[in-house]
Amino acid sequence: MKAFVEIKIEAGANIERIIQLLRSTEGVKEAFAVTGHTDIIASVEASDLKGIADVVTQKIHAIKGIDNTETMVCVED
Amino acid sequence: MKAFVEIKIEAGANIERIIQLLRSTEGVKEAFAVTGHTDIIASVEASDLKGIADVVTQKIHAIKGIDNTETMVCVED
Amino acid sequence: MKAFVEIKIEAGANIERIIQLLRSTEGVKEAFAVTGHTDIIASVEASDLKGIADVVTQKIHAIKGIDNTETMVCVED
Amino acid sequence: MKAFVEIKIEAGANIERIIQLLRSTEGVKEAFAVTGHTDIIASVEASDLKGIADVVTQKIHAIKGIDNTETMVCVED
Amino acid sequence: MKAFVEIKIEAGANIERIIQLLRSTEGVKEAFAVTGHTDIIASVEASDLKGIADVVTQKIHAIKGIDNTETMVCVED
Amino acid sequence: MKAFVEIKIEAGANIERIIQLLRSTEGVKEAFAVTGHTDIIASVEASDLKGIADVVTQKIHAIKGIDNTETMVCVED
Amino acid sequence: MKAFVEIKIEAGANIERIIQLLRSTEGVKEAFAVTGHTDIIASVEASDLKGIADVVTQKIHAIKGIDNTETMVCVED
Amino acid sequence: MKAFVEIKIEAGANIERIIQLLRSTEGVKEAFAVTGHTDIIASVEASDLKGIADVVTQKIHAIKGIDNTETMVCVED
Repeated sequence: MKAFVEIKIEAGANIERIIQLLRSTEGVKEAFAVTGHTDIIASVEASDLKGIADVVTQKIHAIKGIDNTETMVCVED
Repeated sequence: MKAFVEIKIEAGANIERIIQLLRSTEGVKEAFAVTGHTDIIASVEASDLKGIADVVTQKIHAIKGIDNTETMVCVED
Repeated sequence: MKAFVEIKIEAGANIERIIQLLRSTEGVKEAFAVTGHTDIIASVEASDLKGIADVVTQKIHAIKGIDNTETMVCVED
Repeated sequence: MKAFVEIKIEAGANIERIIQLLRSTEGVKEAFAVTGHTDIIASVEASDLKGIADVVTQKIHAIKGIDNTETMVCVED
Repeated sequence: MKAFVEIKIEAGANIERIIQLLRSTEGVKEAFAVTGHTDIIASVEASDLKGIADVVTQKIHAIKGIDNTETMVCVED
Repeated sequence: MKAFVEIKIEAGANIERIIQLLRSTEGVKEAFAVTGHTDIIASVEASDLKGIADVVTQKIHAIKGIDNTETMVCVED
Repeated sequence: MKAFVEIKIEAGANIERIIQLLRSTEGVKEAFAVTGHTDIIASVEASDLKGIADVVTQKIHAIKGIDNTETMVCVED
Repeated sequence: MKAFVEIKIEAGANIERIIQLLRSTEGVKEAFAVTGHTDIIASVEASDLKGIADVVTQKIHAIKGIDNTETMVCVED
């Protein structure tokens, strides 16, 4: 299962450090700083929805400087 | 009277602990972690609108880790 | 698998007729007119994510008067 | 019971005509063209939540040129 | 000049105390706890736009527990 | 008085034609196609708030292909 | 240059047909139906920002059933 | 390259001080306090997208009292 995760960071947080940490996080396939209503878009892959939710809430949310996230699950890979 | 309450939690907060606390809160009928623009959807029941508002502002908002909520009141049960 | 679906209807559409049609739609467990940023909240159940997406895009979207929807998937039932 | 209703109108609709119609609608206490994320804010009063919902869906939504509305119910008058 | 101000409060803040403080603030005509995407709607009056902005940024924002505000100016009283 | 106006256009509308029309509209100082949650940002100047609202509702909204707008008034030029 | 494009489709539009058309559009690298506040997420690549904007406004917006889009440009590939 | 940046400030932050700091920041062309869904709109110019992102994340985000920002890049100056 695949999902896109929009990540908003705290003002003043080091976006380049956060991108490096995301890219080295198990389950995260890619991560880009973007313009627009969010700061970073990452794509996540796991065996099922619970696996995706765990990557988001336990690994991504553990990164210092992340303010909030929104997960959009791909209906089909 | 019934209402759905969207709950956004702080990054890094323990969503499973918050779900357990919500499910054992008087007035809360169900609570689910969800994907999308919010983190949790709960349904609340009380005798009137003030009762619903009290469950939200005095019981739900008292749970550590909750960042903000949005209440959508059912026009008819 | 369970999901909550927020449904925005077209101005002037008959919300009571739409609620009746939703409640008689296979896969839809409940549907309520609500106040707030959406007009109706429904809960949907299916065997997997594709099943949920099919109920939304093929059955709910087929109901006349529905303007757009947002699906929030429950991470665990 | 009192509620504020945010009203978005269709591009090109005659906002002054809509404001006049709103102000002469039973249940609508005031209506103003505003700047910001909505076009008009009206306040509505009725005996209960169903009464407020009826003013919105049956009277306000019947006015030509209205695109969509969001109702925010006052917890206490 | 008149404006409506949407006020979001911090989770756990005492909404009734905030409403009382708003109602006794010079320039604030009314304030209600509401359901929906915001927590409180207040109406503000001042001689001009700068006056309205001052009531918001210097008086309303000074109230402890207020998280953020959105001002919608009435094009005509 | 000065304001920024966010303009969302209909899918398939000719954005370059709309930009040209905006730039030749009296009261519109500049107009740019942008990325993000809106399609065009224009800046508008008029003697007062009613003048700004008239440029938006009578001139900008009259341009074919414009779906909706949001006006953000500068508190001070 | 790379960008993510969120695509909202009209209620009742055939999402699978739209996904096929997107995947065969020059400049579009991937496209997925997703849950959440949008219906489809696509990634687009072009030589510069104007190239990305042209893929969105001239190719993606030309696909029947697309309601509106939001482009989020990657600051670095 | 040019971009508009929407800036939300923390409740209670001194908006006039922040505007002064923005106007004296290299790369920032103009900055206005505004009404609506954001608090300040600034326009930024740099040689390319990375330059714009650096002005936002390294200079604007370094100003005390700024809560979050949204960057909208002009497709053509």
